[in-house]
Amino acid sequence: MSDKRYLILAEGKSGDAHYGKTMRGVVAYSPHPTVAIVDSARAGETYEQIPIVGSVEEGLAQGPDTALVGVATQGGRFPPAWRALLKESIAAGLDVENGLHEFLSDDREISELAIEHGVELRDLRKPPPGLSVPTGENLRVQAKIVLTVGSDCAIGKKTVAIELDRAARARGLKSVFVPTGQTGIAIAGWGIAVDAVVADFLAGAAEWLVVEGARRGGEVLFVEGQGALVHPAYSGVTMGLLHGSAPHALVLCHRAGAEVVEGYPDHPLPSLMELVELHEWASLPLRPAKVAGIALNTGDLSEADARAAAAAAEEETGLPADDPLRFGGASLLDAVLRVVHS
Amino acid sequence: MSDKRYLILAEGKSGDAHYGKTMRGVVAYSPHPTVAIVDSARAGETYEQIPIVGSVEEGLAQGPDTALVGVATQGGRFPPAWRALLKESIAAGLDVENGLHEFLSDDREISELAIEHGVELRDLRKPPPGLSVPTGENLRVQAKIVLTVGSDCAIGKKTVAIELDRAARARGLKSVFVPTGQTGIAIAGWGIAVDAVVADFLAGAAEWLVVEGARRGGEVLFVEGQGALVHPAYSGVTMGLLHGSAPHALVLCHRAGAEVVEGYPDHPLPSLMELVELHEWASLPLRPAKVAGIALNTGDLSEADARAAAAAAEEETGLPADDPLRFGGASLLDAVLRVVHS
Repeated sequence: MSDKRYLILAEGKSGDAHYGKTMRGVVAYSPHPTVAIVDSARAGETYEQIPIVGSVEEGLAQGPDTALVGVATQGGRFPPAWRALLKESIAAGLDVENGLHEFLSDDREISELAIEHGVELRDLRKPPPGLSVPTGENLRVQAKIVLTVGSDCAIGKKTVAIELDRAARARGLKSVFVPTGQTGIAIAGWGIAVDAVVADFLAGAAEWLVVEGARRGGEVLFVEGQGALVHPAYSGVTMGLLHGSAPHALVLCHRAGAEVVEGYPDHPLPSLMELVELHEWASLPLRPAKVAGIALNTGDLSEADARAAAAAAEEETGLPADDPLRFGGASLLDAVLRVVHS
Repeated sequence: MSDKRYLILAEGKSGDAHYGKTMRGVVAYSPHPTVAIVDSARAGETYEQIPIVGSVEEGLAQGPDTALVGVATQGGRFPPAWRALLKESIAAGLDVENGLHEFLSDDREISELAIEHGVELRDLRKPPPGLSVPTGENLRVQAKIVLTVGSDCAIGKKTVAIELDRAARARGLKSVFVPTGQTGIAIAGWGIAVDAVVADFLAGAAEWLVVEGARRGGEVLFVEGQGALVHPAYSGVTMGLLHGSAPHALVLCHRAGAEVVEGYPDHPLPSLMELVELHEWASLPLRPAKVAGIALNTGDLSEADARAAAAAAEEETGLPADDPLRFGGASLLDAVLRVVHS
């Protein structure tokens, strides 16, 4: 492992659970330390004991060697003001990791500056060359495949996959977390951002990911889910990932109490039971996937309310429900293993 | 309208209903004539009274000005032997239209040859710049939106959309066919190949298409469907198109008698009734789409068997069923108009 030290660029977004999710995921799960976070609106505060600073220049005092674009934007493009932050980082000799759809390596000015300063630009969402349609190898992978799905974006599908993978490895299982998005790739150091591939090759990219997860020794694969089947913008990605990764079991993630798609207040969410049925029905007839349990995101609730929400979800669906981040992944892991070995 | 005259390149595939579907669609529906088809394996034969010739050189005698890549390939790449055909066409002064995922304009040798010979390369599947996620404008489009969906690829979703659009215009309705794939674009002269856009922007591209269809004067839009929700390779595209185009009504296309996905003999098809329910359930809660009728492809059946298949489909689903290509689009158009005006 390199001794990479991150400066996370999160200007204006370090307090935003949705658009700051790359920052949050990397701080929580990356093997590499984050030494400072740039967000001038919150300079002087801390996030998880990491200093928030007002500028790249201030952050340099903490000795980073890599700047990470720590925010998501709708549509995945750079707000113009970001160019200054990126250029300042490059001029200071930092490598840059970027998970937006807009690729730094395609930007002539940024690329030339990187060459001039001898730094590397890593576009985490840039698909590998040579992707195509699936070959059927996804259905021949020897591992048991588990995919996290959900009622919305940014509710914890990646976190649940990581927590279940950790719990499985803690039990001595040969488990691998399979990253499918920019934050997962930044954390694990491999993967494909399936939302950035040509739409026709979505399932092919998902197949590649589970084949690679097994090649890395996984006997159980926890595949990071993307989007939601009921999301008006991102459902295509979810569907391609569902079919291409060919899961044996699903874990349905949901923010306790949510009733509409976040940011789309006119779009109601189906009930948990309807979501369970929709996902099982949408899975391939040749590889029917069963929802093993419900992973609730109860971050907004008191502990008592969180336990009550889990009990209500169990009552509604007849499936185990838990908040694995809050209460540990053991019960959902048990449920998953029961399904994949049944 | 220009006086474009097509030479269709269909080497080895002119007899193949699946991989030759661009050739077939353009011959059947393009306003521009096809003067010859290149397929050395069938030289001397004809297709729809168009001469099939053994080489580009022979085809030139018919006076074409545009070569059209008339085949699809799995994964959308050029077999190496095709380079010679393309180079010969360019050297003969023909513009080239190409609907594969591999873009001619990205190929340095082909591009330089095109410049040298003063011809144009048109990559029909190249997405326009600036696509992003949907804005919600799809739900504000004033037109009634009809999407063709189906049990498989290459069973007639484009043909059904074109036939229903023609039938609607014949009745004096302000109807527009909305092309979403390379053949539809070649026929109509506009559109976006949604399977070639970055997966995250699938729904955004579909939104652009229905907004543009209304801008072109459509009060009823017949949107060309892509792939199938139950297809192991292409379901993501179908889902993104279903949500992004925000249809009021669906027409479910099915090849009469098909029981498995073509080319995927292990993948069983659900029943027609299950397909109706799956598509209605998969549509957005905010814009629930109703299946208005079943469009059967009965090309392999006798007329009596075709009528029996339609009757059986009506019996199973309780919906009108017909083969619009064989028996005319009137009955399905009636069914669609009942649903969109209900």
